[in-house]
Order: sequence, then C-alpha cells, then structure tokens
Amino acid sequence: MFAKRMEHLKVSAIREILKITVNPEIISFAGGLPAPELFPLEEMKQVAVAVLEEAGSEALQYSTTEGFMPLRKQIALRMKSKFDIPVTPDNIQIISGSQQGLDLSGKLFLDEEDVVLCESPTYLAAISAFKAYNPKFIEVPTDDDGMIIEELEKILKNTPKIKLIYVIPDFQNPTGRSWSLERRQKFMELINLYEIPVIEDNPYGELRFEGEALPALKSLDKKGLVIFFSTFSKIFCPGLRVGWIVAEKRFLEKYTLVKQGTDLHTSSINQREISKYIELYDLDANVEKIRKVYKKRRDVMIETMEKEFPKEIKYTHPKGGLFLWVELPVPIKAEKLLMQCLQQSVAFVPGDSFFPNGGVENALRLNYSNMSEERIIEGIKRLAKVIREYK
Amino acid sequence: MFAKRMEHLKVSAIREILKITVNPEIISFAGGLPAPELFPLEEMKQVAVAVLEEAGSEALQYSTTEGFMPLRKQIALRMKSKFDIPVTPDNIQIISGSQQGLDLSGKLFLDEEDVVLCESPTYLAAISAFKAYNPKFIEVPTDDDGMIIEELEKILKNTPKIKLIYVIPDFQNPTGRSWSLERRQKFMELINLYEIPVIEDNPYGELRFEGEALPALKSLDKKGLVIFFSTFSKIFCPGLRVGWIVAEKRFLEKYTLVKQGTDLHTSSINQREISKYIELYDLDANVEKIRKVYKKRRDVMIETMEKEFPKEIKYTHPKGGLFLWVELPVPIKAEKLLMQCLQQSVAFVPGDSFFPNGGVENALRLNYSNMSEERIIEGIKRLAKVIREYK
Repeated sequence: MFAKRMEHLKVSAIREILKITVNPEIISFAGGLPAPELFPLEEMKQVAVAVLEEAGSEALQYSTTEGFMPLRKQIALRMKSKFDIPVTPDNIQIISGSQQGLDLSGKLFLDEEDVVLCESPTYLAAISAFKAYNPKFIEVPTDDDGMIIEELEKILKNTPKIKLIYVIPDFQNPTGRSWSLERRQKFMELINLYEIPVIEDNPYGELRFEGEALPALKSLDKKGLVIFFSTFSKIFCPGLRVGWIVAEKRFLEKYTLVKQGTDLHTSSINQREISKYIELYDLDANVEKIRKVYKKRRDVMIETMEKEFPKEIKYTHPKGGLFLWVELPVPIKAEKLLMQCLQQSVAFVPGDSFFPNGGVENALRLNYSNMSEERIIEGIKRLAKVIREYK
Repeated sequence: MFAKRMEHLKVSAIREILKITVNPEIISFAGGLPAPELFPLEEMKQVAVAVLEEAGSEALQYSTTEGFMPLRKQIALRMKSKFDIPVTPDNIQIISGSQQGLDLSGKLFLDEEDVVLCESPTYLAAISAFKAYNPKFIEVPTDDDGMIIEELEKILKNTPKIKLIYVIPDFQNPTGRSWSLERRQKFMELINLYEIPVIEDNPYGELRFEGEALPALKSLDKKGLVIFFSTFSKIFCPGLRVGWIVAEKRFLEKYTLVKQGTDLHTSSINQREISKYIELYDLDANVEKIRKVYKKRRDVMIETMEKEFPKEIKYTHPKGGLFLWVELPVPIKAEKLLMQCLQQSVAFVPGDSFFPNGGVENALRLNYSNMSEERIIEGIKRLAKVIREYK
C-alpha cells in the first residue's frame, strides 16, 4: 500500500526510547534544543503587535513562495557581513526551517540509487530527509580537521552517479568539529574539478566561542556549486520555523518551484516578525548573549568530563555550536550504556544514528546548550559513574 | 544534474503571466485568496501577546512533530461537530497548510508510475504536489453531482497499481461543485470494495451559503480508508500555514514519520495562536461572517454573468466555497482569451491547468472571494465584452 521508500523510513527505536527524556527528572543531553531562557520574549510581544499594526491583514494572507522581500534583503546583508558571501535577495529562498532545505534538496537532486556523499558521522535528520528519496550514502572519513580530502578524492574518482555532497563545516552536528582552512580550500579545489553540487549546512556558524572565523565554503565558491543553508533557529528561536537557502539562480529557481508544490510558502507572519525584530532590535547582541552562555556550558561540561571520565575516553573540544562527541573504548556499546544511564535518569544519543550506513557502536553525542551548569555537572557525573560501572 | 522528476516540474507559463495580476489596477479573478478584510486582526494582536505571556518561551521552542496537543483536541471536537467525524486527538496530525498534506501523501504512497485517480478537473496544486513523485494520473469524469460513479467503477476494474484517489467533494476547486449524497454513498461502497486509500481534501466545507450540509466521505468511512485534510486558511487566515490531517492511526503514524524528515514540525507559535483564538473568541461567528460576504459576492458575480455573458456560455452555480467554473463555446480558447483580457486589465486562470493530462482549452476558473462587489461587477463586464469581441 505504501511507497517503497517507506521501507527505509522507520520509527527509530532509540528515538522512541528518548521520548521519555521529556520527563524533567531526567538530565537529557540527548536533544539539540537551544536555551529557551535566552529567547527574546518581551521583544517578540512588541514585534508581534507591531507587525499586525503596520502590515495589517497582509501579515495573515498568503504570500510569495520566495519569501518576504525585506527579510530576504536583511539576510543578504547578513550573509555578506557574517560569512563574506556577497549575494542579492534574489539568491535567497526562505524555507520552513533548514530541515525543509534538506527535503527540498532530496526532491530536487535525487533519483533512486543516486549517491550522496557526507561526512562520517553526519547530521541524523539529514539522513532521514534524504532517505525519503532512496539514495545510497557514501560516508567520507573525517578527523579533527574535518573531511579527509585524500579519502574524498578517492571516492570522487571511483564513484559514478554522485549527485550531491552534504557537509557541515562549522561546529558540526554531531561532533562539534570545524574544518580547518586548508581542508576548506582543498575541498573547494576538488569540487571545482568534479563540479558536484554541495550543500553547506550552517546553522551554528555564528555561535563561535573562540578563535577566528573561517571562511564559509560558499565564500570560496568560484563556480556557483555551493548551496548554503542557515536558519534563525539557533541564533533567534526555532519555534517560528524560518530558515533560508543561499544559491545561484539556476538552483534557487528550482528550489522555489519545488517548495511551491510542497507547502506554498513559509508562515507570512513569522517571516515578518523576524524581519521586524532585526529592524527594531539587535540580533548581533542576541547572538553574543547565546554565545556566552553556551561557551560557559561547554566549559563546564568539558571540565567535569576531565575530572570524572576514565582517561581512555576521548571527546571533541568544540569551539562553538551545541554538541560534543564522545568515543568510548571499543567494548562499551553506546546503546547498552544508554539503557544503563536511563536508570540513573541521564540520557544522550548513541552515535550509531549519525552514520547513514551504521556500524559504529562506541560513540555518543552530548548536547550542552539546553541545560543549567549545575545539571550539566550532575549529569556528567552520573554518566561517568555509569561508564565506570558499565557491564 | 537534477532528479528525473524535475522534467515534469516546470514553471508554468500561465503562472508567470499571472504574476502581473498583483498590480492593483488589474481586476483579478485568478487567485484563490480569502478576503483579507475579514481576518480577525485585533483579536490576533490579543492572541499573540496572550500566547507569549502564558506559554512563555515554550511558544518559541521546538515542539513535537504531531502538533500542539490542545489544538489537536480542539480540531477533534470540531471534526465531530462540523463533519460528524468522531475522532480523538491521536487521529490528528498538524501540517503546514493542507498543501503540505498533499506532498506528504505523495511521499507516503507514490512510487514512480503508480496511478492516482482524481476528479476531472481537479485542484491545480495537488497535481504539482503529486507530480514530484512521478505518478500517472487517471482523470475520472465528473458532472454537476460530482464524480461519475459508473466511470469510476470502470477505471477501478481495469487499472492495476491505483495507489490513491484524490477528491474534493465539497465546493470543489476549480468548479465549485459539490457531490450529491447518492454519489458520496456509492463512492464509499466502491472504495470499501476496492480498498484504496482516499484523500478527501476539504478546505471549503464550512463555507456553505445555502442548502443542507452533506456528509463528509470520512463520516461514511467504514474501513478507515479515507484520509481527510482541512485547514485554517479559509475559515481563519492562511498566512499562519496551519492545516491538519485526520486519519486512522496506521496512516497517521506514517504521516508523522514523513513530516518529521520534511520540516520537523509546524510553527509552534502559530499553532498556539490559533488554539488561543479558538479558546478566547468565536471561530463559528468568524466563519459565519465569511460565509455571508462570499455568498453576496457569488450572487453578484452570477447576476452580472447572467446579464452580460452571451447565452451559450455555461457556468456552475456553487453553493459554497470560493470559485466557479465557466465553459466557453469550443472555438474560444481560454489562454488566448486571457491574453485579450489582460489588455483590459482583467484576469482568470485558464482551465487547462486543472486537468493533469491537459487537453481542455475552453474552460476557465473565476474566484469571487477576494474582491469587492463593485470590482466583481466591473470585472465580469469587461470579461463579457472581451468574450463577445473574441477573435
């Protein structure tokens, strides 16, 4: 009765288990939620009323698929100032969160059995979005500096039907790693040679805690092959579901066409509210506030891990973003560890879900953005205890 | 470079031409927009502030894919009271406008070359949504009473791989027609026999101007085969992009899974705003207000057509909804007529776009919800003149 793709799209057992972590007694490092106490609640009240007063009923009417023009202008300016990506509003398509960009990309590029290259590991929900189009995934090995270019080159040489490359070069989900400048440059050299469209997913780029910003792949893009996604979810608030795609017109007009059939357009009023917020308030100051809080939480998490974790356990030291990645000694299986942790009311996401082809049992992802420092300390202590007593 | 489906998804020339109709000098019967002067603007200001005050930052945070539970409860009650469909909130999935339901249905049910049955003509944007999944369309002939059951039966008997039947039994877009009680009953008898999932798209059902409400197919559904879509777009306002799916759990849990990969969830704050509006104000009174205004506009349009149109032109007399359908004498081609009308600053959508397999050149759709009575009269007069002078 259902389409073939539904055989690959299944409710994940882990996701079902993690549903219990909404229980506030559980210290959950499993989600990827921003800190709600930082949402600009009072400003949003002002903004919501201002939009309805100024735009009137137009704010509640159908609007264009491309998105609200003043917001596209504001985003274009921000792309230049934050990421050195010089674009016009005509290069911006508003989407319903950057998750929608992944689905639209699958629809736009992927036939059954086409190949998607991605980092190994990669973002869980990108895997589910693409899976709906029945592609094959080839995982490109990574290290602390990002995608390993020699491995990428081998794969590019030997694989037909590569349709799309999906990467998160800044503070990757799930590892928290960022690509070095050299990797970015060499990656783009290869891309220019092979001419394959690249999705640069960048929801966390502005959340850098230390060190210098590195150029976005899109800013190094000479042939217009990079399609850049970002979102207001991590720098403002996610509940409005507003993100954007930056791309050359030949891609962007196809995205618009596909989005039209998918949901007509993104919420008119939510687009206007964000635009009004940027006009009336200081989004940069909001981002700075988020950065400070998350930096502190990351510090506290890593300090506690240094004190509490057995020495053989490795973990990343992200310079920004929301996540870090833990590699356990091989005998420890993360899914089994999770079951033991849940008994101590602490949770995380086992790493296997982040590998499209599976097979990695000894890693896990921790989120530090959504919890007080006290709870982070307590949660890491509990996790460390369960690891030490793992059986 | 692109997926095969993109060969079928093309920018429509007509849609490009109709873009000029945003020019306020043009009297456009082309769109399908509700009357913005009826949007509850003042109430929305109250509601927006109330949601942020009561729910706080939770209104701006990520939320569940299924949708906001209090809203799902309100919709379940409304399904019972308005459509005699007894359901629980567990049968309701919130979607980003009912357009999204069409896309999710394509994803859920359709493999390449699968067959979708639909009314002939049918809703334009349903055709584009399904086309992304490369199905074949078989159009079932219709008359003033809806789908012709004998024709449906022949097709069901002789066609393998029918995966989905898509229908709009109430005040159909584009024709404005409603199915008779007998057709509804006989349709459901056949469906129960052949056991094929049916999408009952019902955005206009509450906008009845006269006559008695007829049972929704879903209310006659004994085997849980009918998947019912509706939306707040026509009874409240469309810019919030909130619609819903009503279905048995075996379908609904698949929709939830597919939606999760598509856009995670529908705007948290927009869902809460609608829920709060229903709690604080009288949605039924709002619908009644809309009904009265649209009825008057339909009356004025038909009265003017009776006076001004040549006698050989046929048109539907919808008892509700937003549209009516005009059949021209065969020599007149609607696309050519549109070009001549645009010179007189009046617009409509040529009928051919509403036939997935094309081939009908002498019909057109008129919208009467989005314009003052004066402009309707003036626009129909101009249209009549161009028809009389057609060359």
